Amino acid sequence: MEDGSFKIVGLAGSLRRASFHRGLIRAAQELAPGGVTVEPYERLDEIPFFNQDVEDQGDPAPVKDFKEKIREADAVLIATPEYDYAVPGVLTNALDWGLRPPSPFRHKPVGIVGTSPGAVGTARGQMVLRQILLHSPAYVLPEPQMLIPYALERFDAQTGELVDERTRESMRRFLNALVEWTQRFKLPVTAHERSE
Amino acid sequence: MEDGSFKIVGLAGSLRRASFHRGLIRAAQELAPGGVTVEPYERLDEIPFFNQDVEDQGDPAPVKDFKEKIREADAVLIATPEYDYAVPGVLTNALDWGLRPPSPFRHKPVGIVGTSPGAVGTARGQMVLRQILLHSPAYVLPEPQMLIPYALERFDAQTGELVDERTRESMRRFLNALVEWTQRFKLPVTAHERSE
Amino acid sequence: MEDGSFKIVGLAGSLRRASFHRGLIRAAQELAPGGVTVEPYERLDEIPFFNQDVEDQGDPAPVKDFKEKIREADAVLIATPEYDYAVPGVLTNALDWGLRPPSPFRHKPVGIVGTSPGAVGTARGQMVLRQILLHSPAYVLPEPQMLIPYALERFDAQTGELVDERTRESMRRFLNALVEWTQRFKLPVTAHERSE
Amino acid sequence: MEDGSFKIVGLAGSLRRASFHRGLIRAAQELAPGGVTVEPYERLDEIPFFNQDVEDQGDPAPVKDFKEKIREADAVLIATPEYDYAVPGVLTNALDWGLRPPSPFRHKPVGIVGTSPGAVGTARGQMVLRQILLHSPAYVLPEPQMLIPYALERFDAQTGELVDERTRESMRRFLNALVEWTQRFKLPVTAHERSE
Repeated sequence: MEDGSFKIVGLAGSLRRASFHRGLIRAAQELAPGGVTVEPYERLDEIPFFNQDVEDQGDPAPVKDFKEKIREADAVLIATPEYDYAVPGVLTNALDWGLRPPSPFRHKPVGIVGTSPGAVGTARGQMVLRQILLHSPAYVLPEPQMLIPYALERFDAQTGELVDERTRESMRRFLNALVEWTQRFKLPVTAHERSE
Repeated sequence: MEDGSFKIVGLAGSLRRASFHRGLIRAAQELAPGGVTVEPYERLDEIPFFNQDVEDQGDPAPVKDFKEKIREADAVLIATPEYDYAVPGVLTNALDWGLRPPSPFRHKPVGIVGTSPGAVGTARGQMVLRQILLHSPAYVLPEPQMLIPYALERFDAQTGELVDERTRESMRRFLNALVEWTQRFKLPVTAHERSE
Repeated sequence: MEDGSFKIVGLAGSLRRASFHRGLIRAAQELAPGGVTVEPYERLDEIPFFNQDVEDQGDPAPVKDFKEKIREADAVLIATPEYDYAVPGVLTNALDWGLRPPSPFRHKPVGIVGTSPGAVGTARGQMVLRQILLHSPAYVLPEPQMLIPYALERFDAQTGELVDERTRESMRRFLNALVEWTQRFKLPVTAHERSE
Repeated sequence: MEDGSFKIVGLAGSLRRASFHRGLIRAAQELAPGGVTVEPYERLDEIPFFNQDVEDQGDPAPVKDFKEKIREADAVLIATPEYDYAVPGVLTNALDWGLRPPSPFRHKPVGIVGTSPGAVGTARGQMVLRQILLHSPAYVLPEPQMLIPYALERFDAQTGELVDERTRESMRRFLNALVEWTQRFKLPVTAHERSE
């Protein structure tokens, strides 16, 4: 794989400055294997709430920009907290627009990661996000799953940086798995239908 | 029950002008039993995306207003479409703020209704919303469930009004059930713990 | 409340001899508040797989027995492991029979508890069980939720006994909450419908 | 693809004689594209309830047989009703055994289909089954989804045969999609990890 030829767009579900999930995306940027770049997309909060009357007039500029970035990417990495056993409205809203057909998420490989202060590590939220992304459908990486419990022991609370070396190693493996998963969907498959 | 003594706040998960879900809330207004008022809350889209840094400075005015209205209500009626097998970001985001402790949704009786153009009638979205509302927890009405399929046959597409008489009758029964469900949680229960 | 006047039936989702979930039911037996008895029901594995042809001929004896025990109980306590992000077949199958109308679970208060060797503590399995029990519907206790992580530190691996004192204290509080929740549904509520 | 070189094992979640889901598996048998065979596996009800004590002594014969059949298959087709917003115990129990590592479902392509008498067409049950199969993980076909509402208009109630021609055509397309999906996972992918 040539340098920079594989592009992952990184979305964080949390907006606060020292967000651990924004930290996860930055960690992915640093830890990406050779030939792979991870580009944080930090403008989800500029997307207005979905409104079909507005969509009928044409996607607003921030929606166009978001869809364009997803379309150009080889894969998407979503780092999101669990809010109320589901995922935050800012992420849900971006997907409300982004999953409308023709969706740039259609057949797009997606990896999901998340962390929580407690033990459960976003188990329920990730299940809801998988259900949401089935809609276009995106191709969500089935394994490894990356649920990071006890965030306060692994991230710098002041900056949101992922400092735990074992978790950084997990992120390396996760990104490799996402790249391999993506390659499966780039290969030409002889349509069985037409091979008869 | 005296006139107007029981107050339901109605939230719609869709923003478009002729939304069937806004129509459902208006129908509830018209069909509320004696002594019960349903008040649409139409300002969910003024609530900014949840951001803990902002919350740390104090709830923004639209959040304060939203929480206040929920707190004053005897019960809440949520009419929401299903987006991508889940619920829209505008509703999710309002709940991101509203379910933070101390939450006005805590122990608040909530009824969920929804409609879809096709046959499934928001079955998956309502399940996700139940999961979200377990968080504070709210007390979500378990039955009857109100999933309205084939919206185009039951609503006026120009105005969003619920015109189907059978569905209007279902709404009457639903509101009665919500009021009865609420009464269970108003009655004093002798704490078993303290009765020893 | 008079001695023995409040009866909870306890179901365990696991069959192995030293099951922690059978241990949880035994712990509930020991820790039940005055006036409350917890009776383990240990015959779920005698219930044949649900088959509508068989049901049409009349419930088999083990199904009759199971339904009878649920019907007589004031509340039900289910202690279940999470298998594959859901709940075990032996429990699912008992509910396949038990939730058919007229269901003894209808309007029956139910508490759910579970433990896991790892950190997640049956978070996903409990959500699926809540979804299943919405069907009759049963009235599943919304809080406290009891997800017990790191089972090996809290149970005796040889016997399945719950030995951790803090978790035993949580069980006491859980049972008190289940009794209070049940009382809400025993009180007469003036039907609003009929009060017009 | 040579005749009979691609083998799909078909599992039905319902046991009654005239089950529509057993009918769906038979329809798949008839409608399989050239070179593809669908083999119904009709012995799920011989599998005892999962019990780790038993597993520790070695898988019972019916479990061995089941795992062997799954292992030999190129893909699996599951036709299951929705019971109580989830899937039947007889199917759940087979998966309780079958998903234990080393699982024959690991990386196995799986297609899910279902039908219901009403409008919802197993929407909630299929979501739960997707969640369960994520565990090994199996590779569940993301699309097309096949939810068949109003079963009584499409199946012969006496025999369970799928008689509706449009639904039979959908099954043809579904099987083609499952074969193509499977091919993605047979192709060699250069591990990115090792290409550095």
